[in-house]
Amino acid sequence: EIGMEFRGDAEVLSILERAGADVRGERVRFERGMCRSIIQASAPAEFIQHARNPERSIRLGGMNTALAPAGGAPFVHDLDRGRRYASLEDLNNLISLVQTIPCLHHAGGFLVAPMDKDLSERHLHAMESQFLFSDKPVVCAGAGTTVAEDCVRMSALVFGEEFLARNCVLYGAVNTNSPLVLDATMMEGMKVLARANQAVTVSPYILSGAMGPVGLAGALAQQLAEAMAGLALYQLLRPGAPCTMGTFIGAVSMQTGGPAFGTPESMLGSAAAVELARRLGVPSNNAGGAVTAARIPDAQAAYESALTLHTNLLSGANIIWHCAGWLEGGLTTGYEKLMLDADLCSSLEVLTRGIDLSTESQSMDAIREVEPGGHLLGATHTMKHFETALWRPSIWDSKTYEQWSEEGSQDAAKRANALWKRRLAEYEPPAIDAGVREALRDYRRRRAQEIAASPA
Amino acid sequence: EIGMEFRGDAEVLSILERAGADVRGERVRFERGMCRSIIQASAPAEFIQHARNPERSIRLGGMNTALAPAGGAPFVHDLDRGRRYASLEDLNNLISLVQTIPCLHHAGGFLVAPMDKDLSERHLHAMESQFLFSDKPVVCAGAGTTVAEDCVRMSALVFGEEFLARNCVLYGAVNTNSPLVLDATMMEGMKVLARANQAVTVSPYILSGAMGPVGLAGALAQQLAEAMAGLALYQLLRPGAPCTMGTFIGAVSMQTGGPAFGTPESMLGSAAAVELARRLGVPSNNAGGAVTAARIPDAQAAYESALTLHTNLLSGANIIWHCAGWLEGGLTTGYEKLMLDADLCSSLEVLTRGIDLSTESQSMDAIREVEPGGHLLGATHTMKHFETALWRPSIWDSKTYEQWSEEGSQDAAKRANALWKRRLAEYEPPAIDAGVREALRDYRRRRAQEIAASPA
Repeated sequence: EIGMEFRGDAEVLSILERAGADVRGERVRFERGMCRSIIQASAPAEFIQHARNPERSIRLGGMNTALAPAGGAPFVHDLDRGRRYASLEDLNNLISLVQTIPCLHHAGGFLVAPMDKDLSERHLHAMESQFLFSDKPVVCAGAGTTVAEDCVRMSALVFGEEFLARNCVLYGAVNTNSPLVLDATMMEGMKVLARANQAVTVSPYILSGAMGPVGLAGALAQQLAEAMAGLALYQLLRPGAPCTMGTFIGAVSMQTGGPAFGTPESMLGSAAAVELARRLGVPSNNAGGAVTAARIPDAQAAYESALTLHTNLLSGANIIWHCAGWLEGGLTTGYEKLMLDADLCSSLEVLTRGIDLSTESQSMDAIREVEPGGHLLGATHTMKHFETALWRPSIWDSKTYEQWSEEGSQDAAKRANALWKRRLAEYEPPAIDAGVREALRDYRRRRAQEIAASPA
Repeated sequence: EIGMEFRGDAEVLSILERAGADVRGERVRFERGMCRSIIQASAPAEFIQHARNPERSIRLGGMNTALAPAGGAPFVHDLDRGRRYASLEDLNNLISLVQTIPCLHHAGGFLVAPMDKDLSERHLHAMESQFLFSDKPVVCAGAGTTVAEDCVRMSALVFGEEFLARNCVLYGAVNTNSPLVLDATMMEGMKVLARANQAVTVSPYILSGAMGPVGLAGALAQQLAEAMAGLALYQLLRPGAPCTMGTFIGAVSMQTGGPAFGTPESMLGSAAAVELARRLGVPSNNAGGAVTAARIPDAQAAYESALTLHTNLLSGANIIWHCAGWLEGGLTTGYEKLMLDADLCSSLEVLTRGIDLSTESQSMDAIREVEPGGHLLGATHTMKHFETALWRPSIWDSKTYEQWSEEGSQDAAKRANALWKRRLAEYEPPAIDAGVREALRDYRRRRAQEIAASPA
């Protein structure tokens, strides 16, 4: 009835019209079922995003869930220096820390924006830094032709042209401009990535009450419409190109007017959106991983992050963004928050494995050995499974009040502060071919100069 | 094969023997299915626990979930005075605060133990304080004949003998002494409460690696065996008496030897225990509501509490204990933690309601009015639902960094500190008949003297 606007891209409008859509100016209306049938005709139900270390490649779809760290923040926070604009050094540090966290499956190319670099070259740094400091799958900037093409070119330097042509190594985010608009820069990026047969998520970003209605059913319908319109376009651009259906549902606080995260409505909306993707038959991408409006890694940050990630994991989203480090509605990525959220991710990873019902887990030998009223700490079964039986956090601890007081009564954020410093001090980046490293650096330098010299 | 020990109560042993159990000394073995069939023959699937304010009575069983605050702590914590032994004043304050939190459905008689009162009279104060400062359902101390009888007598002063004889107003906890022991004081309390036709939960308290095996399947089997043995005894004592199957599964940290809470194993175990109660056909009682090993209301406390309560609510436990205020493995109840957890409880309450799919929630009028690229903040639909559409927290907030800085950069615990003080300053206890109030006070004073003068 209302349709969707595809702004500033005549080529896209003619592609949609040829496919049978009702195009009037930039407003495009689709017959009921049209987007669904285009998507279902060619979009893969599952695909692999390859990492430069093949052991870290991830499968998107089915029963798989990949966790990715926070991204997109202009600010960075740590306990020593507070909140400030992020630098390239911060980005490199944060990518390095993510590399040390096994339950984060993505490199995290935009954990923070390197604000000390010109806007025009930030994507070059993000790609280079991901390949230098991580060997996990990378995230690609997808806004605009130039940016997306640079990401494809730099990936080719690492993976080789031939591998790149036949495999997905890049995953880019296409955000609709809610309500019901897709902007030209996003469509430019989609065209580049579709041509290169790389993956995108088409992800509305809806704060109920601002970019969508406060009624959750309506917000869900709107986000489904926007995502399906974008995914249908992607399949028309290149049938069979890998893609995921994204979701992000937050809310505008009716108390402050500011964006609220971790609310029950956003949890319900995120879980329902994953079901809608499952029904559509494409992998789901949830961009509201462990999110919060809190400005520091305090109790509020932890409550909101735990609630959202718990919900998202149980919903079975195939890839979840912003699972670690997010603060202040995404404006800030925190060093301590990243490390604290790592415990959250690893705890929930164990939760999703369910209960081991093996004979060993049944522990009858322990129950027989100890008898009523006894104590199992020294039991043979306990000693045998001592090392591996129970989940172990890195920061959350179970020291007594007395122990904890003797060690300085440090709150969890303080302990996280010590941990990230130790991790960075000991960090050794994964090996990379020296020629590849130089090629990446040369490409980044050359392109930064070219872009700076170009009239746009 | 191993059986369960019922220690120090010859009457119970003869009751169990008459029912067909194999009794050798204090070790009692049950034929496969015996406990289950005793329980299923008479235990009610649902029952009402009456509050002195009938609007606050709760139904235990079916699709209902009641949330109860923390209990049992000898210590109390607040930001101003730190951690210290709790007093009667603290208990009264905390019961009053719980009364102001709608999503907590129980009065919280043992939010802290009044350590400034002699052990022998604490239960008298707990009963009196619950009735004076709250009109929600009360929790009853069940350890020992004297204690349980006093709770029954004091309830009769409030509800009247006749009402008490025909209705459940008391709910007491019977903890097994894991592994596989039921102690005399617990059985004494069970006998008093069964005679009075009041409710108990039979709740093992298992820390895997200490009172149970580290294998989760084994810990679950053990807790099921202990709970079923206790519940079968309760039904033998009084067929049809209301009861619930309790669970608490934590772990001993294999790193520190201290008790760990909020671990993924405990979440899985708690959820599975609720399923086992559902299969048995009795209401479920989860005693691991929003639990943590953290000593202060920091990020760790919030992560662990959010994870456990989220899991417990989704598991559908009929009553959940320790949903608000718990710190330090239950050794401490915190003023700020209580208020912070209240936001957690209220958020999850909204989550459990699911998604409203009404025409109003579908919001088509808003989507039509605003059109692509617009903004919904001023839309008619948004304005109409402004007050009620979205969940509102009391402490968690979504202020911008700038607002928050101007207001003193207060972390969530600091804001909770201000909130509980304001609530207490404005608090007015619910009305109670002056004669009942005097009768409770007189009973408490008289019994305290009698107990002090008695030889035991």
